Amino acid sequence: MSEKRAVVLLSGGLDSTTVATVAKQQGFAVYALSFDYGQNHRIELEYAARVAAALGVVRHAVVKVDLRAFGGSALTSDVAVPKGRSVEEMSHGVPVTYVPARNTVFLALALGWAETLGATDIFLGVNALDYSGYPDCRPEFIAAFETMANLATKMGTEDGKQVRIHTPLIALTKREIVELGMSLGVDYGLTITCYDPAEDGAACGACDACLLRLKGFAEAGVEDPARYV
Amino acid sequence: MSEKRAVVLLSGGLDSTTVATVAKQQGFAVYALSFDYGQNHRIELEYAARVAAALGVVRHAVVKVDLRAFGGSALTSDVAVPKGRSVEEMSHGVPVTYVPARNTVFLALALGWAETLGATDIFLGVNALDYSGYPDCRPEFIAAFETMANLATKMGTEDGKQVRIHTPLIALTKREIVELGMSLGVDYGLTITCYDPAEDGAACGACDACLLRLKGFAEAGVEDPARYV
Repeated sequence: MSEKRAVVLLSGGLDSTTVATVAKQQGFAVYALSFDYGQNHRIELEYAARVAAALGVVRHAVVKVDLRAFGGSALTSDVAVPKGRSVEEMSHGVPVTYVPARNTVFLALALGWAETLGATDIFLGVNALDYSGYPDCRPEFIAAFETMANLATKMGTEDGKQVRIHTPLIALTKREIVELGMSLGVDYGLTITCYDPAEDGAACGACDACLLRLKGFAEAGVEDPARYV
Repeated sequence: MSEKRAVVLLSGGLDSTTVATVAKQQGFAVYALSFDYGQNHRIELEYAARVAAALGVVRHAVVKVDLRAFGGSALTSDVAVPKGRSVEEMSHGVPVTYVPARNTVFLALALGWAETLGATDIFLGVNALDYSGYPDCRPEFIAAFETMANLATKMGTEDGKQVRIHTPLIALTKREIVELGMSLGVDYGLTITCYDPAEDGAACGACDACLLRLKGFAEAGVEDPARYV
């Protein structure tokens, strides 16, 4: 029986670590893919490597893509990361931490690797409920990407296979994600979610990503094992 | 009146140079985008820069994306580029020079830059008639990408703008592309099409890309000004 392979986008954060664990639990041989895209919070690549090792993935590839050439986002330039916002404030409009076409670029690269591996399954930790400010986290975007991917590749044409973009967290709240991960034995102490961590990797506890994460753990009644400043 | 901007994918070859000229002729301020993706024929980046300068583009960005991590194609690995094939042979199946998900990756990055620039127009020199072996050169792929792009971005959602992927060559033969370019005054001596050029940039004259190019010029009754070994 041939190995069932999946490419999993892995940032080293709470969501993608949970998704990688789900993929493994579903019987996939996991090929973890991270990006060095000029992000200010580059330390997440170390966390991604640690998570990949803990999960026993088949391979962890880090692809360099220089998105800084485009500018226009707090995550890859010198714009300040907003702190202390309410969930209400976060949910209005597209945040400045938005990286133009990020999930499109990342999924496109995942598709390239998947085709090379003969894998039709790609896992992505997007989440539409708790954080709806990013257009490329919505189910209709994922569905459109999947349609496009099947037209783009040999897999989707010659072989009669179907590319599938799995987003197991898309309809879950952060609380439900934490609960799912705990039930699968995820060690969230290995993960980092912060947009603006200290040099030693301690999370700021005040950016949108930290606040949503802390809220999820609090609602799940679990202590967040991540280090905070 | 605000400037009408377009991102144009520019490889320095015959097709993309013609497309960039078409975009300029349609009144767009051209932002040319090339990729350093580990291609063996890296010399095309010098040709792209020369074409960009000759066209007077607003900016020419070269984005590094390391596709070599994925392997699986003659254009980025050590597999030999096929030589001396008939057009009949080229039209069967997907050629080994296929780069997995290449147009998906390149269009995704173009979309990111377009969004940063506030540009809704992206030009791409794909051509479905003379060379149908690549799934990501087909009109149905382009249409699906456009649909996805409008769901992926702020432009396609908040602002009520529409992302448009322009493929002015998609239904043209190589002969018609040469004729179009000549009518617009394109200097094809600045371009390079070869998959396997000599170190000084002279084209091999025998790979699929050279053979299709030479056929196009011959049928248009024009002498190809490119240098051949």
